[in-house]
Amino acid sequence: MTTQHTDTAAATAAAVAHLRAHDAEHFAQLDEFLRIESVSADPGRNDEVRRAAWWIADELERIGVERATIHETGAHPIVTAEWMHAGDGAPTVLVYCHYDVQPTDPIDEWVRPPFEPRHEDERVYARGAGDDKGQLFMHLKAVEAWMRTAGRLPVNLRFFFEGDEEVGSEPVEQFIAGHADLLRADVCVVSDGDTFDDDGTPAIGYGLRGIAYWEVRVHGPRQDVHSGQYGGGVDNPANVLVRMLASLTDERGRVTVPGFYDAVRDLTDDERAAYAALPFDEATWRDETGVAAAMDGESEHSLLERLSARPTFDINGIWGGYTGEGAKTIIPAWAAAKISTRLVPNQDYREIEQSMKAHLASIAPPTVRVDARIIHGGAPAITPLDHPGIGPASRALEAGFGKAPLFQRSGGSVPVVAALDSRLGLKTLMVGFANPTGNFHAPNEWMSLRNIRDGMVSLVHLWAELGAMRGSDLRGD
Amino acid sequence: MTTQHTDTAAATAAAVAHLRAHDAEHFAQLDEFLRIESVSADPGRNDEVRRAAWWIADELERIGVERATIHETGAHPIVTAEWMHAGDGAPTVLVYCHYDVQPTDPIDEWVRPPFEPRHEDERVYARGAGDDKGQLFMHLKAVEAWMRTAGRLPVNLRFFFEGDEEVGSEPVEQFIAGHADLLRADVCVVSDGDTFDDDGTPAIGYGLRGIAYWEVRVHGPRQDVHSGQYGGGVDNPANVLVRMLASLTDERGRVTVPGFYDAVRDLTDDERAAYAALPFDEATWRDETGVAAAMDGESEHSLLERLSARPTFDINGIWGGYTGEGAKTIIPAWAAAKISTRLVPNQDYREIEQSMKAHLASIAPPTVRVDARIIHGGAPAITPLDHPGIGPASRALEAGFGKAPLFQRSGGSVPVVAALDSRLGLKTLMVGFANPTGNFHAPNEWMSLRNIRDGMVSLVHLWAELGAMRGSDLRGD
Repeated sequence: MTTQHTDTAAATAAAVAHLRAHDAEHFAQLDEFLRIESVSADPGRNDEVRRAAWWIADELERIGVERATIHETGAHPIVTAEWMHAGDGAPTVLVYCHYDVQPTDPIDEWVRPPFEPRHEDERVYARGAGDDKGQLFMHLKAVEAWMRTAGRLPVNLRFFFEGDEEVGSEPVEQFIAGHADLLRADVCVVSDGDTFDDDGTPAIGYGLRGIAYWEVRVHGPRQDVHSGQYGGGVDNPANVLVRMLASLTDERGRVTVPGFYDAVRDLTDDERAAYAALPFDEATWRDETGVAAAMDGESEHSLLERLSARPTFDINGIWGGYTGEGAKTIIPAWAAAKISTRLVPNQDYREIEQSMKAHLASIAPPTVRVDARIIHGGAPAITPLDHPGIGPASRALEAGFGKAPLFQRSGGSVPVVAALDSRLGLKTLMVGFANPTGNFHAPNEWMSLRNIRDGMVSLVHLWAELGAMRGSDLRGD
Repeated sequence: MTTQHTDTAAATAAAVAHLRAHDAEHFAQLDEFLRIESVSADPGRNDEVRRAAWWIADELERIGVERATIHETGAHPIVTAEWMHAGDGAPTVLVYCHYDVQPTDPIDEWVRPPFEPRHEDERVYARGAGDDKGQLFMHLKAVEAWMRTAGRLPVNLRFFFEGDEEVGSEPVEQFIAGHADLLRADVCVVSDGDTFDDDGTPAIGYGLRGIAYWEVRVHGPRQDVHSGQYGGGVDNPANVLVRMLASLTDERGRVTVPGFYDAVRDLTDDERAAYAALPFDEATWRDETGVAAAMDGESEHSLLERLSARPTFDINGIWGGYTGEGAKTIIPAWAAAKISTRLVPNQDYREIEQSMKAHLASIAPPTVRVDARIIHGGAPAITPLDHPGIGPASRALEAGFGKAPLFQRSGGSVPVVAALDSRLGLKTLMVGFANPTGNFHAPNEWMSLRNIRDGMVSLVHLWAELGAMRGSDLRGD
């Protein structure tokens, strides 16, 4: 055992040394990957999304990972691959990331074009730098480091990379159901989140919010009409829309859709204690976001709890009528909004999708026609803090970052995590490396060079740590 | 007197015959005028607005009207001209129209491009056909008919044509104050409204609503942020905006800004009786607009009263966040709306402008910054039904349309009417010829050939009718 341990430590050190020796080369490759405009929401860029999938598959084959496959779906391709030679009883780990990115508007708020990576202040700026192409790339390089030094990996790895995460991961559920043979593993590692802070404190995510997302459109007169001639008689669809949307939350920001909170699992005392133990400075948080004050929400929950363990309601976009220069005195023919709620265990996003639609129909006045369309949904998820993978992951992150990780729930949504649990019984360790203030989904997205470097070292250690276990132990069966 | 009467009748008949003889030529000229893209709200079309002003001035000179002048303003030019040779004691009439037009969006809802006039179903379709270039053109042709036949006009006429009406007539108040010599008259005739119905029932307008128009912008986080990461903590500016806007009206559509109704003059019993006497079929009105039901407003007022004698609140445009394809999970950095209220006697638009601004500031939560900017305002106006010009105008309209006019208040706003009253003590006869369902401010604006022809004949008669009076009698001094 001692020899094996020493061997593994030496092999890990060699793989880490490989990363250090190829630092400049890696950042150049990362830039090449980030230049691919893989915006999944933009049908005009479907070919770019596909190009990103091919880039990954080529890279996996070059590294020595086997069976790299591009799977067609109803939307963007899914890439899988595997290396299964770690030996009898060795654990199998499924690695999930996504290679699609958010749209780039408002484009004129970017300092440099979003697909021309910029290295500045020890950061890489580009769309996808943190969410999630940068993290996917780190996994490729950590595997390459093992393969180029030890010629093998300490664990069996399976890869599952999708191109629809930013538009709701519609294809993954069906894919998971139909391709269990390609995805079966003892544990899943998802890298699509962030470190605890921007000072190099790593984090392991143990919870995610779910989401339900709709587009609502209120139709009034056949076409825009003169607000003088018809005002006071024709109910204004924009007036109706804002009344309906305003009524969806109460004065504490709680969603008013009937039954919305019925399934919400209250936080346990232990969970609340864990939240309370997390370092958090509200003034710093306000500075990061540029808001003068945090939202006045459910006062029985701390701000951190409200940011990740409580449901939300947000208008993500709203539009209608005249929005050009000057004044136009119309009652618009229609007004529309994109709205979403973040969901927490144990809310069922399918039930919420339907109850919101029914509620919107029920509050629509007879003067208008209201269309509410479901855009996408995803379930919330929780991984128990006593899962057998948590210890190895903690040691790996401490090795990479020089600090023990903190445990946090994320306010975001990664629908695949819930689907892997329900379909394959697979629990997920959320090991994310993006910077918490890194402007995901916003202009000037960035990731620090430090997080990229320390994260890759952590992943090299993670495979060594998990390789020291047996698969059956890791599963916790 | 008999001779003179006979002479006038013959001269009027000759002028009307001139109109009939030049019908095709007039419609070709109208198309030429309508092709000028005089959109005052679009800075990119400033030259087109100016071109329309020159087109009018050239036409006035060609007809024989004198002192045609293009006045520079801080915005678009004002055109004035006059013919002052009607003789001692003859009345002087100021004619007001505007040559600017509304923007054309949504452009893809036009059957034909808005500046390519289309003649179909006995209508002219084009932006400005009814509001107001078509009506301005009718005045030019009625004057030309007198000048080409009698060689003179029965009254002194002054012309006052502006190019900023659709953006709030900002320059006119100052212009009126500074150019009383060019505008002084015994009565004003404004043609910027519509007939009572589309079956050839003319109307004389005796009231206009005023307007106050704002742009409101709610600023939240420094830039768009991830709705998962920040949702529940960062107050969403779009959520805040819809809450604020929804709160500006109550369940009856009444404006909640403190003091808003304080100055509203209740309708007298006579006015309510006049409203009740107007033929109005609500089902037809619903068909015209395409709405399933009229707005549920102040139940103590009829729909017609609410459409013109009661204040309104409308969101004219709203925008913010992600409005493209698919889903983007952001909390937008800001959200904005253009909002307006129609005002009735004796509301003071300047007070309303300020009280709305103050109210918006007072209801803004501390989580956001709210900017409310006044875009434009205009006063409501009333002309007494016993004004000495009402009789002659009624006879002229009956001569042109073959039906006696009805008396109505308009729900729209013509700021110049209130300004002429307050600055020059000048009362206005609102003699409008557009079709009530003619899509002003909307795609596929149109005016019927019948209204154009009958309106021009009415104007020929109007100058004869007013020419039979003395100026001092017309003033009602």
